Amino acid sequence: MNALYRQLKKSNLAAVRAAIRVGQYRSHTAGLGQGYLQANLAIMPEVFALDFMRFCQRNPKPCPLSAVSDTGNPMMFTLGADIDIRTDVPTYNVYRDGILTETVNDISSFWQNDLVVFALGCSFTFENALQQAGIPLWHIDNNKTVPMFRSGIETEPAGPFSGEMVVSMRFVPEDRITEVAEISRRYPLAHGAPVHWGDPAEIGITDLNAPDWGDAAPQVDRHVPVFWACGVTPQVAIEQAGLPLCITHKPGHMLISDVSEYAEVPNYQTDKHFKGE
Amino acid sequence: MNALYRQLKKSNLAAVRAAIRVGQYRSHTAGLGQGYLQANLAIMPEVFALDFMRFCQRNPKPCPLSAVSDTGNPMMFTLGADIDIRTDVPTYNVYRDGILTETVNDISSFWQNDLVVFALGCSFTFENALQQAGIPLWHIDNNKTVPMFRSGIETEPAGPFSGEMVVSMRFVPEDRITEVAEISRRYPLAHGAPVHWGDPAEIGITDLNAPDWGDAAPQVDRHVPVFWACGVTPQVAIEQAGLPLCITHKPGHMLISDVSEYAEVPNYQTDKHFKGE
Repeated sequence: MNALYRQLKKSNLAAVRAAIRVGQYRSHTAGLGQGYLQANLAIMPEVFALDFMRFCQRNPKPCPLSAVSDTGNPMMFTLGADIDIRTDVPTYNVYRDGILTETVNDISSFWQNDLVVFALGCSFTFENALQQAGIPLWHIDNNKTVPMFRSGIETEPAGPFSGEMVVSMRFVPEDRITEVAEISRRYPLAHGAPVHWGDPAEIGITDLNAPDWGDAAPQVDRHVPVFWACGVTPQVAIEQAGLPLCITHKPGHMLISDVSEYAEVPNYQTDKHFKGE
Repeated sequence: MNALYRQLKKSNLAAVRAAIRVGQYRSHTAGLGQGYLQANLAIMPEVFALDFMRFCQRNPKPCPLSAVSDTGNPMMFTLGADIDIRTDVPTYNVYRDGILTETVNDISSFWQNDLVVFALGCSFTFENALQQAGIPLWHIDNNKTVPMFRSGIETEPAGPFSGEMVVSMRFVPEDRITEVAEISRRYPLAHGAPVHWGDPAEIGITDLNAPDWGDAAPQVDRHVPVFWACGVTPQVAIEQAGLPLCITHKPGHMLISDVSEYAEVPNYQTDKHFKGE
C-alpha cells in the first residue's frame, strides 16, 4: 500500500479516484487531495436528514456542510462531474443502532432509496494553508494523528443530535497565533478560526497528554496549544443518536472532490461565474 | 413613521425590537440594526424544509442560512434570547399557492405546528462594511432601493426550488474593485464576494437602466458595475415552487438578531467560546 500511496501522490486526481473506485487503494487520503477539497461523510435515512442538517447549520465550525445529496441519489453532482458515493471513498464504517458493525470498501450493497449523503469539510484544507505559510505541524511532520479531545463546549442540539464539541489541538509558536487564526478563518468550510487557545482547562480539557483520539503531541517552549472544532463532533453526535443505519468514512479516509480548496462556494461548476473567487 | 424611525435610530436594540413587537413600528429596518445581523425570512411547512435547506446549501451566496427553527417552534433561540418570529418582524408577506394574498404585521393567527422558519443573511451587513471603508453607495446616500436584476446565472436546483439567480448592482470606483471584493468576501453570511463585475451582458443582463426590482442607478465616470448574489433569489424560487403556504418578510423589513455582524458563527451565545471572532 505504501508504494501505491507514493505513486498516487505523484499522479493526477483522476488516477487517485480510479484507484479508490475499483478498491485498489483503501487507505488514508492525507496529501492526495492535490488542491481539491476533501470531505468527511455521513449517510443516513431521510427521516433524520432535516434534523442533522439543522445540527450542522447550528454548529458550522465542527460541521461545515460542503454538500447534501438528493434523497436516494448516490451521485454527488455539486462536488464533481462523476462522484459516486457508493464507491469513491477508500474505506467506510457502517453503524447500526449507533454501533460499528462493518468496515467496508464499497457500500453498493448497503444502498437504500431513502438515504441522504452529507459531505462535511475537513481540517486538511486549513492545514495545507498553514504549512504553506511556514507553520510547522508536528503530527504531519512526524506521521502521527492530530490529538483530539472531548471539550466542555456544548454543541447546539437539533432533534436527536447533541453532545460536546470535539476539538483538535496543534501547538503554535506564541508569536504566530494571530496569523494562524486569521489564515484558518479564511476557510469556513474547513472549521474556520480556532475555538480557543491557551489554558486547556478553560474549555474543560484536563490533560493535554491524554487525548481522547489521536496521538499526544510533545509540548515545545514558547508554543501555545491552539484548539479547532473537529469533524469527529458529528460522528459522536450520530453515535449518541443511535440511528438504525448510518454510514461514515473511516477517519482519515476522505472523499476527494473536484472543488478547489480555495473555492468560496463548494460547487465545482461555479468558478466560471464567480470572479470573486 | 419618520419621526419614530429617527427616534429608534438613536435607541438601543431592545427599544427597536419592542416597538416592532407591539406593532408600533412597521417600516423598513435599514440603519436600525446597530451592529447586529439582519435577516431575510422564509417560513414554510416542514414537508418542504429539507429541499429548501438543500437549495440554500447549494446556493449559499444568494441564500446564506443564518438560522433554522425547530419545527413548530416560533422562538429563534440561536439568533437571540427572546426572538418570537410571529411578532418580531415589522411587516410580513403571506403567499398561498405562490400568490401574495396578505401583508400583515403579526403572523400569530397564521402559525401552524408544522412550520419551519429560515432566516437568511442580507446585504445590509456588507454594505455597512463598505461604507466604513469609505466606499460610497448611491442608493443609501440617495434614499433609493438598490437595483436588482434577473441574471442568466442558474441556481443549483433542489426539489421544487430552482430558477435564475437575482443579483443586486452597485457602481464601484474602478480602482477599488479588488478592495470591495475582499471586504465583502469576509461576510459569507451576507452574500460574500461579488458574483461578477464589468460587462452586464456576460451574466445575461441587457439594460442596466431597467432593473427588475429597485431603482436604476446613474452611471458615473470611471465606475464599474459590480454584481452580488441577492436575497430576492430564494423569494423567486419559492414563488415559482407554488407552496400552499409560505410567509416571508416584506422586502427591506428585516428580522434584527442579537448576533454581531462580525460573528463567524450565527449564534448569539457562542462569542464567549470563540476567541477567534
